[in-house]
Amino acid sequence: MSSAQPLVKDELQASMTRLGEAARAAAAAMAHASTEAKDAALRDAAKRLRASKAALLAANAEDLKAARARPGAELTDAFVDRLTLDDKRIEGMAAGLEDVAKLADPVGQVMAEWTRPNGLRISRVRTPLGVIGIIYESRPNVTADAGGLCLKSGNAAILRGGSESFHSSRAIVACIQDALEAAGLPRAAVQLVPTTDRAAVGLMLTMPQYIDIIVPRGGKSLIERVQRESRIPVIAHLEGLCHVYVDGAADLAMARRIVLNAKMRRVGVCGAAETLLVDKRVAQSHLPALIRDLLDAGCEVRGDAATQATDKRVKPATAADWDTEYLDAIISAKVVDGVAGAIAHIERHGSHHTDSIVTDDAATAERFLDALDSAIVLWNASTQFADGGEFGMGAEIGISTGKLHARGPVGAEQLTSFKYVVRGTGQVRP
Amino acid sequence: MSSAQPLVKDELQASMTRLGEAARAAAAAMAHASTEAKDAALRDAAKRLRASKAALLAANAEDLKAARARPGAELTDAFVDRLTLDDKRIEGMAAGLEDVAKLADPVGQVMAEWTRPNGLRISRVRTPLGVIGIIYESRPNVTADAGGLCLKSGNAAILRGGSESFHSSRAIVACIQDALEAAGLPRAAVQLVPTTDRAAVGLMLTMPQYIDIIVPRGGKSLIERVQRESRIPVIAHLEGLCHVYVDGAADLAMARRIVLNAKMRRVGVCGAAETLLVDKRVAQSHLPALIRDLLDAGCEVRGDAATQATDKRVKPATAADWDTEYLDAIISAKVVDGVAGAIAHIERHGSHHTDSIVTDDAATAERFLDALDSAIVLWNASTQFADGGEFGMGAEIGISTGKLHARGPVGAEQLTSFKYVVRGTGQVRP
Repeated sequence: MSSAQPLVKDELQASMTRLGEAARAAAAAMAHASTEAKDAALRDAAKRLRASKAALLAANAEDLKAARARPGAELTDAFVDRLTLDDKRIEGMAAGLEDVAKLADPVGQVMAEWTRPNGLRISRVRTPLGVIGIIYESRPNVTADAGGLCLKSGNAAILRGGSESFHSSRAIVACIQDALEAAGLPRAAVQLVPTTDRAAVGLMLTMPQYIDIIVPRGGKSLIERVQRESRIPVIAHLEGLCHVYVDGAADLAMARRIVLNAKMRRVGVCGAAETLLVDKRVAQSHLPALIRDLLDAGCEVRGDAATQATDKRVKPATAADWDTEYLDAIISAKVVDGVAGAIAHIERHGSHHTDSIVTDDAATAERFLDALDSAIVLWNASTQFADGGEFGMGAEIGISTGKLHARGPVGAEQLTSFKYVVRGTGQVRP
Repeated sequence: MSSAQPLVKDELQASMTRLGEAARAAAAAMAHASTEAKDAALRDAAKRLRASKAALLAANAEDLKAARARPGAELTDAFVDRLTLDDKRIEGMAAGLEDVAKLADPVGQVMAEWTRPNGLRISRVRTPLGVIGIIYESRPNVTADAGGLCLKSGNAAILRGGSESFHSSRAIVACIQDALEAAGLPRAAVQLVPTTDRAAVGLMLTMPQYIDIIVPRGGKSLIERVQRESRIPVIAHLEGLCHVYVDGAADLAMARRIVLNAKMRRVGVCGAAETLLVDKRVAQSHLPALIRDLLDAGCEVRGDAATQATDKRVKPATAADWDTEYLDAIISAKVVDGVAGAIAHIERHGSHHTDSIVTDDAATAERFLDALDSAIVLWNASTQFADGGEFGMGAEIGISTGKLHARGPVGAEQLTSFKYVVRGTGQVRP
């Protein structure tokens, strides 16, 4: 390659090191920032986003224009939709930051307290994690959501959005940084990686001295790359292969409402149902209406023999269908032998994300809820509730499919660690 | 069956795969095992350890003999002490398992519950983590402690003790497995890596499909190797560079008691104090007695100029001393400018493990407790309380110096994850 290559590489390295050092220093200050200062910064950032609407839309137009002009660009509607800012999305970001300001401050919360027989009083107190690196697709609004949650939880954030959203994200981060400064907090508490160079991601993953945790958001290939390459612990959402099981004791009207919502409310979210399981006891009474609803709503149904028999429009399912997260208007459907059959299918094919049972039988429901090792298990509710906002966490940075540290929706509280504070009166250990 | 001989590579791989598959299956069963069955297995294992005393001592004698016969073996007293089993240690292991049986079962505990405005009832419920891999030095008693904690928390354990303790560990695991079987639980819930081949450790670290978390216990080089090579999340104890700060408002008698205990009760444990910091306001009144106590107890003191001036036996400290975890009868000592000076020193040189302040001034104490980002911060108590048993956790598998998932003592509760259980009445998401 050209002789300029090593120099460019060194510059990138130096730039990322400066970013990391600034984040580390900011994290130390943010850990002891008052709730009032943090909430003031969040509310002020919301105000600045609204006031900067014209600038944000202009930056976004620049991003959209560049994306369309890329050689060989074939932009999907979904990609353009994610990248586009409009009045509603800007108001959504601002309102989101105000919601996060209203949340209780997790830092300093006493999680547990007890006194030992020797008189030592022990408390477990929430502390920030430190520096959080977030790697995400070209969705500018994630910049505000993720920055806001990190700020609230007393952490510093290093944000690396998709390169196509660079100008939009930079404009959003400028609003947050101005608000941080106005509240007397370090601007570097929320930083954007200052380059679209893809090599920056590789550097982030190997900076454990500056970054305490990596949160990737995006497609499966990005997540897998991050999990493979990272020398820093990762909180990741890998796959949402979610199931709805309609039990023999299910109310048909409720089952129809839940199945249709779980699949079709939004098909591209991780909590969307991908497989419908129906108890053979209600294959005659319930299955036809459930399948017809889906087909009539424009959903492709790939079913087993029993499901195919209910409607000519049902396509045959292949073995791969039971293991596929469609993220599209497609569902696989199968008749199973009661709750035991459903549990066995989900344990074998599911991704331990979100699974729901519809039944009027409490004992059957509790068996399902207990048996499945999924981040979220629901009884008589749609899988689309798999969301930090719906859980009352105000917002989420993602949904963790791992079992360590954070599982399920990752909100401000999940971005914290803790320490033990021990108060004594001169005790020594025998 | 099991062999202490190195296996050829393919055999080793096949053997580790069998171990992993058996652990995975056992973990699924253990996750739903009743509290009664788990506690019965723990109590029965204790009984079997006591009844097998002769066999355990014979296996241990074999290990000791082999260790002494190794070509070029230079066994330190500390090594031999850790490897040796005697009546007291066997009774200690048995009593430890009985203590773990007495702990509350963490699995199924409801950690939080709330109801959403739409009527959804959400609970956060503790679940086991799955399969836990534990890599430790040649300390047979860790086999019982670690196996017992994993069993209690509904996990399966894969244990890899130091090769010199292989026969002892195998005899201990046999007792636990017989007890598991007698309680109707899978023997594979607690397994020992069936070879002393060091390559087995490398294989463990790259088996994420079978092992959910790795807990290394041992020297810094082992921990660093595990953190570097592991493709599985690691909960590790890296370093305990613990401080005692004697404030200007400290009671001298209390300070003397705490400093001497923090350093000299046991010098080889991670909670042993390595650096003494004394407020310059009491350099005249307190420092000489504190230093004299240590010297008289056989502790080497490496001090700054002020400390050297108190006693001729004090050696000069070098810059490296402030960053050294001695794990020996050595302490570094320094005069600092009040609590701010102590905080600055500890933040710069500490390992965020355990740090203590001695003072009668509550405001100063709270400032110290709040400012330091250490797993354990103490006020008027010895750093040697850094221990799961002393915290009331019954036992510990180690002390985590990381901030993710587990921090500080790692007991049964820290070996769990959680899931969200959501109970509805037909809710769909708007």
